[in-house]
Amino acid sequence: MRLAELSARSGVSTATIKYYLREGLLQPGHRVTATQAEYGEEHLRRLRLVRALIQIGKMPVAVAREVIAAAEDTSLDHHMRLGAATRALPRVPGPAEDDEATGIAHRSVDALLEQLGWHGMHDEPSPALGTLITSVAALVRLGYPCDTAHLLPYGRLAAELAVADLDAVEEQPTAAGQIEAAVALTVLYEPVLLSLRRLAHVQESARRFGGR
Amino acid sequence: MRLAELSARSGVSTATIKYYLREGLLQPGHRVTATQAEYGEEHLRRLRLVRALIQIGKMPVAVAREVIAAAEDTSLDHHMRLGAATRALPRVPGPAEDDEATGIAHRSVDALLEQLGWHGMHDEPSPALGTLITSVAALVRLGYPCDTAHLLPYGRLAAELAVADLDAVEEQPTAAGQIEAAVALTVLYEPVLLSLRRLAHVQESARRFGGR
Repeated sequence: MRLAELSARSGVSTATIKYYLREGLLQPGHRVTATQAEYGEEHLRRLRLVRALIQIGKMPVAVAREVIAAAEDTSLDHHMRLGAATRALPRVPGPAEDDEATGIAHRSVDALLEQLGWHGMHDEPSPALGTLITSVAALVRLGYPCDTAHLLPYGRLAAELAVADLDAVEEQPTAAGQIEAAVALTVLYEPVLLSLRRLAHVQESARRFGGR
Repeated sequence: MRLAELSARSGVSTATIKYYLREGLLQPGHRVTATQAEYGEEHLRRLRLVRALIQIGKMPVAVAREVIAAAEDTSLDHHMRLGAATRALPRVPGPAEDDEATGIAHRSVDALLEQLGWHGMHDEPSPALGTLITSVAALVRLGYPCDTAHLLPYGRLAAELAVADLDAVEEQPTAAGQIEAAVALTVLYEPVLLSLRRLAHVQESARRFGGR
């Protein structure tokens, strides 16, 4: 299909598509004349993925490019490609403070990882671990429950979700399909999970406090 | 304590504290002279909450102000105040598209709410419901599993988390304390949950694909 059709089918303007092509987020089409290129279903699919990362995952264009590049880097083994793609996902760990609360958070999280049987997390510190410690430190400062006993149910639920997520990844027949699925499911199921938690809060609050 | 001490204890600069005072995010201190005010533990606590909303919850200042104002609006009943505070939390539902994928997402989510026994969700549509539908529609467009059977485990886990969260809210002895806890726990446990899911992915991926 030509650019105009790719635009019509994806709902993305031709100007934006050209921008993604220049930025390397979308692979080039097959050149048919000096000024025209032909695009296929793989371009439409990539365009939908890029839009999802940017609109739903709220990723800046530069981060989306990094994620796509990591997913395409075939010099890495399969596990590393899955990891590289999701490690490039935006997590802002916040300021690394070195106060008492951060110390407590470190100990809480270490004990949690131990109890979950998750090893090797400190070998290659991930942004997710930084975010976890920063968030727990903020809870400590406000005096809210966040010791290992309180965190453990969240960790166990996360482990259950990871099994379901990786099952969905393995349903994809090709290695490239699995990497794309890992990125898409990681990003797109985050708002699903947070939205459902918010809706569950409303239900549970109505049940307990409704009309009070 | 004076402004300088409030700044030292909170780690927030005096310029930022003055800005929060002007913007109504921090309640005014008790005036002692024409140019000086005295602050108490309640100011320190509020400041920590505001910092957590902005830094960890990534809330714009205007949204944080709205959340604080909703939490303080004593004209609402307890359930409504809990809800007002969390409904003001930032959820960007994305563009309301009206394509086939959005129609499928609507039906999937309706069936999910029915199976979870969550009623009254459409009476007062929340940003969380919009985010959920938009995210599911993006999954549909990419052809990933997101029918009711796939969403149900996420919904059940969210319901379990909501019970734990509301238990923590009810541990607070005062109504004001419960509202603050609802806001803080909603916002601060989101990065905890997402970080743990990312870490669980790394573990599960290493278990399945390690060294491949």
